Amino acid sequence: MRTYGVIMAGGGGTRFWPLSRKDLPKQLLNLTGKDLMVNETIDRLEGNVEKEDIFVVTNVTQADLMLEATAGRVSADHVLAEPAARNTAACIGYAAMEILKKYGDGVMCILPSDHYIKKTEAYKKVIADAIRVAAETEALVTIGIQPTFPSTGYGYICHDDTKNNDCYYSVKRFVEKPDLQKAKEYILSGEYLWNSGMFVWKASVIMKYFQKLLPDVYDCLTKIGEAMNTEQEKAVINEVYPNIPKISIDYGIMEQADKVLVLEGDFGWSDVGSWDALEALYDKDDHGNITYGEQIHIDTHDCIIYAKSKLVTTIGLDNVVVVETEDAVLVCDKNRAQEVRKIVEALEDSNKPQYL
Amino acid sequence: MRTYGVIMAGGGGTRFWPLSRKDLPKQLLNLTGKDLMVNETIDRLEGNVEKEDIFVVTNVTQADLMLEATAGRVSADHVLAEPAARNTAACIGYAAMEILKKYGDGVMCILPSDHYIKKTEAYKKVIADAIRVAAETEALVTIGIQPTFPSTGYGYICHDDTKNNDCYYSVKRFVEKPDLQKAKEYILSGEYLWNSGMFVWKASVIMKYFQKLLPDVYDCLTKIGEAMNTEQEKAVINEVYPNIPKISIDYGIMEQADKVLVLEGDFGWSDVGSWDALEALYDKDDHGNITYGEQIHIDTHDCIIYAKSKLVTTIGLDNVVVVETEDAVLVCDKNRAQEVRKIVEALEDSNKPQYL
Repeated sequence: MRTYGVIMAGGGGTRFWPLSRKDLPKQLLNLTGKDLMVNETIDRLEGNVEKEDIFVVTNVTQADLMLEATAGRVSADHVLAEPAARNTAACIGYAAMEILKKYGDGVMCILPSDHYIKKTEAYKKVIADAIRVAAETEALVTIGIQPTFPSTGYGYICHDDTKNNDCYYSVKRFVEKPDLQKAKEYILSGEYLWNSGMFVWKASVIMKYFQKLLPDVYDCLTKIGEAMNTEQEKAVINEVYPNIPKISIDYGIMEQADKVLVLEGDFGWSDVGSWDALEALYDKDDHGNITYGEQIHIDTHDCIIYAKSKLVTTIGLDNVVVVETEDAVLVCDKNRAQEVRKIVEALEDSNKPQYL
Repeated sequence: MRTYGVIMAGGGGTRFWPLSRKDLPKQLLNLTGKDLMVNETIDRLEGNVEKEDIFVVTNVTQADLMLEATAGRVSADHVLAEPAARNTAACIGYAAMEILKKYGDGVMCILPSDHYIKKTEAYKKVIADAIRVAAETEALVTIGIQPTFPSTGYGYICHDDTKNNDCYYSVKRFVEKPDLQKAKEYILSGEYLWNSGMFVWKASVIMKYFQKLLPDVYDCLTKIGEAMNTEQEKAVINEVYPNIPKISIDYGIMEQADKVLVLEGDFGWSDVGSWDALEALYDKDDHGNITYGEQIHIDTHDCIIYAKSKLVTTIGLDNVVVVETEDAVLVCDKNRAQEVRKIVEALEDSNKPQYL
């Protein structure tokens, strides 16, 4: 059975502002110092998915940029352009329909485009196992991340205690982001993994779940599917897609489905959700700082300092994020890096589109 | 008796880095939002000193810039160019000799070029009194600032408790920067004023003190004086000046002189010695911040934020100084703003002259 890569790359650019922008979302940033996040995601599929079977789903406004940024990794007809952002169920359903109608059923390996993986080989092994399990069953397969701390920022997956074929568990339930007390209990129980948003299943299988659990979405996908390979394809997508109900695959399907399996991932994962997450990507210097670009520090500890175009200097700082780009500077308490979106909201409200 | 203004403008640009630079020292900055500090200093002499009797003493490397920056306030032959920085005794001695040799004896009103005065009228009144006292006596007259807090950053002037002619006291002694305990005692005693570095005296009087207390400096000044109004003037200054002993007027003369008088200044003075001193110049906003330029703040309090060319944004900051200029950014604990010079030293050591 053929295996397809489906890279979800429709996210906007608020969490890494001022580096990320509306037209330069996180997946198009080089946060690791090696390559763009989307390219690292694509390249990590090597060995599990053939290059010509990799799709990228992105917003139509970014499709050209994505094609250029991926530099030959993905062909133009494998960049699926969403006319509107309608959350992950629509995105995955669109890709599943594209695959079923144009290429034939196969295992879809669905990956966020902007996550960081430290241990590539361990990751490839888990993905290979997940593809095999998905191919051999009619299950929805997901990758759960071995928690390293009681995070209140991630959803959790609760599984039973039977490890099957030395690789997967049955999922008992998905749980929303917990409070700290619950998160601690989850960690201690040994039954909980972080929900990574990586999914592996057959296109035909997920389509049955759409039909059963999200019939409104399914109807839209069916209309789009019927127009595929016809002259009306683009027009129908433009008409139907913006009306697909906005719902996440987790909420719409994963939490409701009867047969979900999870594989344990322990490969140095981070969703790189905000500036402070760079601590998962880089080694700190002797003072606990992570730095990029030209800088001078005096008595500065546990900071994240990113200098793109200017000399950045600090005196007596602890736990502060400093980001300097061509047109903006951010100085932020490191423990509040997730509030960067509030700056973006303020910019939207204050009529300063040049900074968005 | 004629009255001359002597503006000391030879200081370098370390304390307000990255805004101030080697070629753009503090006196040439517009920190008040009104005019350059040196121009405000000159303009404040109006009513006490005729415009054509105002001298500016500065380093030869900045003489042209000073002439341009003062925009007609000072004529070219009243910009006295020091071939080398030799501290305040040399600077004042040079100006005194220039006045004596070329214009005739008179009262010199010697002022730092980079101080802030909030209450101009109160200031002018004190200066007028000081000029009168200096003209009527053979004393060295200085302005002491009524302390508003137990500063450990200023020197103090201890005076007796007899107020003469409703305006001046006899100085008992000058004291160096004290520790906090001593500073508190000084404040409570009512006998101490801050040493502002403003001096008023006759050129002939200070010259006698040079002869008596700083004979080595006096010898140099004499050589320079003898060459004045001759073709050798410039050559002699270039030869002799760099060898004048480096000593401050406070240490070399004020602390040793027998007849020093002090007038009390209570006119909202600040020497604007570092970024945090801007709090003396500006009203704070509702969150205790002082801001300049384009910015967005979230939960930010008691900060000083200066944005010259970019949008500066902050989240969750307290008591931080953020300064953004065309080529550099400074982020500094507000209580450590005086350590900015360490950044400048690091730049000197690290071979980055473009930032000096």
